[in-house]
Amino acid sequence: MTRLAPIPAALPATVPFVGPETIERRSGAAFAARLGANESGFGPSPLAARAMREAVGQVWQYADPTSFELTQALADHHGAAPENIMVGEGIDGLLGTLVRLTVAPGDAVVTSEGAYPTFNFHVAGSGGLLHKVPYRNDAEDPDALLDRTRAVSARLVYLANPDNPMGSWHPGAVIEAMLDRLPPECLLVLDEAYAEFAPASALPRIAPEDPRVIRMRTFSKAYGLAGARIGYAIGAPDLIAAFDRLRNHFGVNRIAQAGALAALQDQGWLAHVVAEVAAARDRIAKIGAANGLTPLPSATNFVALDAGGDGARSRALVAALEAEGVFVRMPGAAPLDRCIRISCGPGPELDILAEALPRALARL
Amino acid sequence: MTRLAPIPAALPATVPFVGPETIERRSGAAFAARLGANESGFGPSPLAARAMREAVGQVWQYADPTSFELTQALADHHGAAPENIMVGEGIDGLLGTLVRLTVAPGDAVVTSEGAYPTFNFHVAGSGGLLHKVPYRNDAEDPDALLDRTRAVSARLVYLANPDNPMGSWHPGAVIEAMLDRLPPECLLVLDEAYAEFAPASALPRIAPEDPRVIRMRTFSKAYGLAGARIGYAIGAPDLIAAFDRLRNHFGVNRIAQAGALAALQDQGWLAHVVAEVAAARDRIAKIGAANGLTPLPSATNFVALDAGGDGARSRALVAALEAEGVFVRMPGAAPLDRCIRISCGPGPELDILAEALPRALARL
Repeated sequence: MTRLAPIPAALPATVPFVGPETIERRSGAAFAARLGANESGFGPSPLAARAMREAVGQVWQYADPTSFELTQALADHHGAAPENIMVGEGIDGLLGTLVRLTVAPGDAVVTSEGAYPTFNFHVAGSGGLLHKVPYRNDAEDPDALLDRTRAVSARLVYLANPDNPMGSWHPGAVIEAMLDRLPPECLLVLDEAYAEFAPASALPRIAPEDPRVIRMRTFSKAYGLAGARIGYAIGAPDLIAAFDRLRNHFGVNRIAQAGALAALQDQGWLAHVVAEVAAARDRIAKIGAANGLTPLPSATNFVALDAGGDGARSRALVAALEAEGVFVRMPGAAPLDRCIRISCGPGPELDILAEALPRALARL
Repeated sequence: MTRLAPIPAALPATVPFVGPETIERRSGAAFAARLGANESGFGPSPLAARAMREAVGQVWQYADPTSFELTQALADHHGAAPENIMVGEGIDGLLGTLVRLTVAPGDAVVTSEGAYPTFNFHVAGSGGLLHKVPYRNDAEDPDALLDRTRAVSARLVYLANPDNPMGSWHPGAVIEAMLDRLPPECLLVLDEAYAEFAPASALPRIAPEDPRVIRMRTFSKAYGLAGARIGYAIGAPDLIAAFDRLRNHFGVNRIAQAGALAALQDQGWLAHVVAEVAAARDRIAKIGAANGLTPLPSATNFVALDAGGDGARSRALVAALEAEGVFVRMPGAAPLDRCIRISCGPGPELDILAEALPRALARL
């Protein structure tokens, strides 16, 4: 057997997420409603879809490793300079490179118990030491994160705003205040995967070149391009430039670049999706409430429904929904795991959810 | 400024390759012939192109992180088990994960002076110590690689067969003999990016589960899907499974998965491309010879042309060809850099090369 390097040799064989296709193969049945991965069943802009079909004609060419056109467009979109933007293979890929850039073996990193597991996966892969603080009122807790950051001299502190998996959010001013209290040796990793769904008041006013924070954005959620694997980071030029030292330079798909550029340019479609998602959130909340589950407020494209029990009950409910043909997920840690998490989708998929949920509850 | 971890902090800001789009932006003119990155201007199978256009309709969904269908099909294609196959974001992405899995800071790694720079980039990113041996007769030198591997107790030794950037190749039996002499603590990284173009005799008979070697294959070259970013590794089940500890699980594009599967299933198109490439190699050799450049034998989709001088002359010739609208590249190290490297392309692009080469030489 090949000898692994010490850090990977010590890692467990677990993976951050099991894909719905694996569950389908186990059960032998395809899901009737795919509401588990916070994908956008409303799809990408038709202009993005057209751009991707057209880009197939040039797929024999490697993509521009600088993602020049998209980077320019993103800079314009955010009032930033191209030097503030790094395009990568989704937030997962960008988080992986960021962690390798900043976390040496033994370095402390702070996150919340139950927050995004793929970030934790990358920290473990670099030999970093994860410190977790509890959520407070189903939201990530800036005070607790900062306290722990100081206590362990963390290199990175992770916070998603709006939050996944709970859907909660902080006013932008809270994030700004957090930055002002951040120890100088620590970088805030601000995951804004769901920012497009959030009220404007939830978006902090952060200068793109602010060296205290790096923001992560994606085309996977509101832009409907999860399968394209493309996202971007916004940060200080020196940190953005440092990505070139480690990243897979030719890692972004050429068709994805074309789709992302066209998607960005169709802000009308984005507004349409955001409105559809808001309506779907309301409907999921109503479906949950009609079945005795308590919906939590959400500024994302999903709703956490309190199933009124512990993690075991939620796991049983997720499994029962799977058996009814509905793919959903749930938070991985107590006390968040009293909830299940249902992604917003088009009306027909929510119709299926409405029929399946009482049957699933009856199975418990 | 964000403090980087020690290993990336010590890395230079260089990147493995400058993309042709960057050169085009500098010059303000688009290339008339794109013959520098060993892409396939013959394009992917029309069935693959159709599969990709159809897959755009599902791009709102994340790809199956296990690439289940494609992995099964690749296993069947190679007479292997799915446990021997790992699909990833091209050979670049797979090499990156492999190096992180096996190379700890300070570990020795052996390659050839002038061989694939992206492998070296990844080794540097893990803090490995690169040892380079010279080519011998414009081919990577198994004896020298093995001697150095033993001398420095290397963890990995890299060899491409057929070779990039020279196009040379070893009989499969030479690779098999190399494996038999490999120190037990070292893994052979056998880059077979160009295997589909090589004579059958150049392909070693290696059991998929052989723990001494991991083979890298790609859809970027003969299959014409460079911009899709998809490739695969073949190796022992324990090593293949270990990729799950570090890889970007959702890193492969959904459209790429569909394209790769359809491309693999159209072996007739592959045979067509291989025949076109063989004819293009002959034509590039003739164009070179007609202009006083000596073509080297090639088992790949490119031809190295000896420009009869040193690296400075080749660099000037590459620049002159760029000025004439033709994108080519050249080896990065002496004595290989007496050559320029021209990728096989369709007739019209080679017509442009035939017209541009004498004009470029006249510029020198």
